[in-house]
Amino acid sequence: MRANYKLKRLFVDAPISAGLAIAAEKEQSHYLLTVLRMEPGAELLLFNGRDGEWRARLESPAKKKAVLVPLELERAQPPAPDLVFCFAPIKAGRLDWMVEKAVEMGAGVIQPVMTQFTQNTRLNPDKMQAWILEAAEQCGVLAIPELANATKLDDLLERWDLSRHLVFCDEDSATDNPAAILATLKGERLGLLVGPEGGFSDDERETLRAKPFVTAIPLGPRILRADTAAVAALTAVQMVCGDWGNRS
Amino acid sequence: MRANYKLKRLFVDAPISAGLAIAAEKEQSHYLLTVLRMEPGAELLLFNGRDGEWRARLESPAKKKAVLVPLELERAQPPAPDLVFCFAPIKAGRLDWMVEKAVEMGAGVIQPVMTQFTQNTRLNPDKMQAWILEAAEQCGVLAIPELANATKLDDLLERWDLSRHLVFCDEDSATDNPAAILATLKGERLGLLVGPEGGFSDDERETLRAKPFVTAIPLGPRILRADTAAVAALTAVQMVCGDWGNRS
Repeated sequence: MRANYKLKRLFVDAPISAGLAIAAEKEQSHYLLTVLRMEPGAELLLFNGRDGEWRARLESPAKKKAVLVPLELERAQPPAPDLVFCFAPIKAGRLDWMVEKAVEMGAGVIQPVMTQFTQNTRLNPDKMQAWILEAAEQCGVLAIPELANATKLDDLLERWDLSRHLVFCDEDSATDNPAAILATLKGERLGLLVGPEGGFSDDERETLRAKPFVTAIPLGPRILRADTAAVAALTAVQMVCGDWGNRS
Repeated sequence: MRANYKLKRLFVDAPISAGLAIAAEKEQSHYLLTVLRMEPGAELLLFNGRDGEWRARLESPAKKKAVLVPLELERAQPPAPDLVFCFAPIKAGRLDWMVEKAVEMGAGVIQPVMTQFTQNTRLNPDKMQAWILEAAEQCGVLAIPELANATKLDDLLERWDLSRHLVFCDEDSATDNPAAILATLKGERLGLLVGPEGGFSDDERETLRAKPFVTAIPLGPRILRADTAAVAALTAVQMVCGDWGNRS
C-alpha cells in the first residue's frame, strides 16, 4: 500500500498499538500545537520503525501538551530495504541533503566512508540520525535506515560481507550508461559506494576495481557533484535492480 | 571528449580565441587571485557557451587584476542538449539546488512553471542565471541551458511544441518503475515536468493526462521531495532515452 501523503507523519520513540495513548515529546508538542496549530481531535500518522504506520488522534489534556492516540493501522511495517548506501561525507550544508536523499531513495543502511579526498571527517551521528528521521517522516519511509559508524575505505572493503555486491560510481568508465552493467546484477544483494567531491584517488580506484565483489558504473557524460551522483546512482540501481521493479 | 576535472573552469562573457587576452571581471579577478590564490602563469579552463572550452593562462598585469590568455581548444562546443526541463519552483534554499541539478543532468532549457500548489512564485531570474553558470563551471557543462520565463501550467500546455513529448512525474501511477514507459519514448524529443512539493492538483493531473503529447511516469514506491524527484526523473530519462546512451 502506498503512503498517505495528506496527513502529517510523526516519528515516535514508543510502542504503537490501538488506543494506547502516547505522550508527545516536548519538542513535538510544540511543533504540533504551536507551529502547525493542530487542534485536538485532528488526525495524523505515527510510526516508530517497528509497528507500521498508524492513524492517530491528537489530544491535548493540558496547554502545550500533546497526546497521540493510535486509532488504526494504516500500513503494515515493511521489511527494511536491503541496500547498503556507502558515501564519503561531503561538506556540511550539503551533507544533510545527501542523507535525506539516501532515505528517500530507499537505503537500508547509511554508511559514511572516509576516503583519501573526503573533506568532512568530523561527523555528528546525532545530527545525522535526526536527518534520517526527518526524511522518513517527510517521505513516508517506515523502515528507518540504520546509521552505521563511519569507517575507512580500506576497512569497509576488508570487512565487506561477500554475499553482497558493491557498485561504485567511477568517472573513468568506458561507457556513459550504467543500465547494461546493472542489469547483470539483478537479484544480487547490493551496496552502492559514492565518492567525495573530487572522486576517488587513482590508488583507491585501482583497489576497488581489483576486488571480485566490486563493479564500477558510469553516470552519464557529465561530471556530477557528489550529491547529484548519489541520487542519480540510487535511481539507476533502484530502477534496474532494486525495489522500483517490485510493482512494474 | 570528456571534461578535464583537474583544472578550474571559468565562464567568461567574451569571445574566446587563441592568444586573444580577456580581462577578467572584477569579481572573477578577486576570486582567482585572492580566494584561490592562483599565481600568474597558472592554467585554467575558459568557456562562454559558444566557443568550446579553452585552456588558458592567467596573467596579472596589475595588482588585483587578472587577464586570461586562451592557449588551446580543449573541447569543441557541443550542441545544446535537447531536453526541456519544466519544474514548479520550490522554496528558496532548495530552488538553487534544483536548478544546479538540472544543469548537471543535461537540461537544455530550464522552464519554471507555476502550478496550483507552487509555493515560490517570486523568482529572481538574475539569481537563477548565476546558479546556472556556476553549475556549468563546476560540472564541465559547455552548452549553457537557456533559462525560460516562468509560465503558468495552462499556458505551457497551450503553447507546447507538439513535435516534443512531455513526460510528467505522477505519484498516482499503477506501477513504480518508469523504465518500460520511457523505453517507448526512445528517439522522441522530450520535455520533463516535475511538480511542486505536494504534487499536482487533481485537476492538473487530469488536464495533463488528457493531452495526447503527455505521458505520466512513476518514480518508485516512495514519496519523493520535489528536488529528489527532479534528479531521479532526469536520471531515468537520460538513462533510458537521453544522452547517457550516446556512448554505451
